[in-house]
Amino acid sequence: MTSAFKNCKSLLVTGANRGLGLQIVENLVAGGFSPGKIIATARSPGGAKELRYLADKHPHIHIIKLDVVNQRSIEKAASHVDELVQEDGLSCLINNAGINVFAKFDSVTAEQMLENFHTNCVAPLMITKAMLPMLRKAAAKGSGMGIHRAAVINMTSLLGSVELNWGERGSNFRWYPYRASKSALNMITRSMAVDLEADGILCMAIHPGWVRTSMGGQQAPLSTNESINSVLDVIGGLTEKDHSSFLHYTGEQLPW
Amino acid sequence: MTSAFKNCKSLLVTGANRGLGLQIVENLVAGGFSPGKIIATARSPGGAKELRYLADKHPHIHIIKLDVVNQRSIEKAASHVDELVQEDGLSCLINNAGINVFAKFDSVTAEQMLENFHTNCVAPLMITKAMLPMLRKAAAKGSGMGIHRAAVINMTSLLGSVELNWGERGSNFRWYPYRASKSALNMITRSMAVDLEADGILCMAIHPGWVRTSMGGQQAPLSTNESINSVLDVIGGLTEKDHSSFLHYTGEQLPW
Repeated sequence: MTSAFKNCKSLLVTGANRGLGLQIVENLVAGGFSPGKIIATARSPGGAKELRYLADKHPHIHIIKLDVVNQRSIEKAASHVDELVQEDGLSCLINNAGINVFAKFDSVTAEQMLENFHTNCVAPLMITKAMLPMLRKAAAKGSGMGIHRAAVINMTSLLGSVELNWGERGSNFRWYPYRASKSALNMITRSMAVDLEADGILCMAIHPGWVRTSMGGQQAPLSTNESINSVLDVIGGLTEKDHSSFLHYTGEQLPW
Repeated sequence: MTSAFKNCKSLLVTGANRGLGLQIVENLVAGGFSPGKIIATARSPGGAKELRYLADKHPHIHIIKLDVVNQRSIEKAASHVDELVQEDGLSCLINNAGINVFAKFDSVTAEQMLENFHTNCVAPLMITKAMLPMLRKAAAKGSGMGIHRAAVINMTSLLGSVELNWGERGSNFRWYPYRASKSALNMITRSMAVDLEADGILCMAIHPGWVRTSMGGQQAPLSTNESINSVLDVIGGLTEKDHSSFLHYTGEQLPW
């Protein structure tokens, strides 16, 4: 893995109890170039056995309880993060927690649309707002853009590309709540990039590929390790030119 | 105005009590090429004085009560539409009702995000689902694509373009709830275009321009009449090539 993470003082990843979030924590501690502090959030830390096992072995992993759709929980987590990172601030926030409320045209309900939008788009926005004081502290100490200074990474999806929602890809993935939530997340990423630029905080969206997780299913071509190895390489290499971008896990640019 | 509307047996427009929706009804009856039936919906028909005045003069205008975020109201309106259009079905559905829940990064709340998403993205989806049997009836009788057969038009915005959310346009319109809702609406437009294609129902999104309405404000360059004249020309001229498109009110294609 890229050595860039050794210059990242602290990294927070949401939804770290399983799937891609857990794999991010695993790969960061396995690579020898770990951030100074890894803050791993989960809605129910008590049930996050694998994460707790990792944290027992690596004392720089800090597990925090965070229900991403609960504003009080977000604010409590933010206070906790502030205590942990102190004057160094937060160098990298990875908004990874997400769900797929599966529904096609015939069956989709308003409630399903709202639920998926809340978790996948609104939550990353509200979490970033709550972490902003800590991100600013980190950004104030550096120059340039990237995880050596301060960055917000939103885990999005190719299925959030409105342009690519056509042809075979449109026909095969008719997932209304998920697609709407991810295109809205892409928009929020751009808006936050506009607003965070003056502070020197990089903001971008990345598609982790189609991965064998509980969401991606067993027919997916990538293992979580293959995906996250590549995703962390991309995140580690981000610079000014990637601010407000939408990147594939291989590093290529994707159309909105 | 384009003569295409004389081949459109019935047209429904939501949010017809004021602004662009009211102007659509006005221009359709003023042009001499009116659809056979104009169904104008409003949340509170009792308060829609100008619309009721128009309907008194033009008996082919039918006012229906519709609260776009209330599923029971959507279903009641759909039954009412079915009775009105009978075997002809519904030729053109214009999802026009929309709001701008104004909030920037510092002030935006989860509730504001959800409210704007519900009205601007979820409602057009749920209304289209409810009107589908009537749209299908109309589509079954025609060939090709356009308002002579069956079409769903979503009133979107340039501010829903993720690609264009940058530079001056990004800095000047930092409206999180509105932008997220409109990018999600664009996604839903593409998804519905995929799903409605087999029935021969055209589906597209159009940006009406920046218009002097209660939403657009008085500094906007276009009058509602200028905007809607152009919008109706574009809608009247839609063919297969415009299926799943995102068009400017001048007819040019916009980036997602």
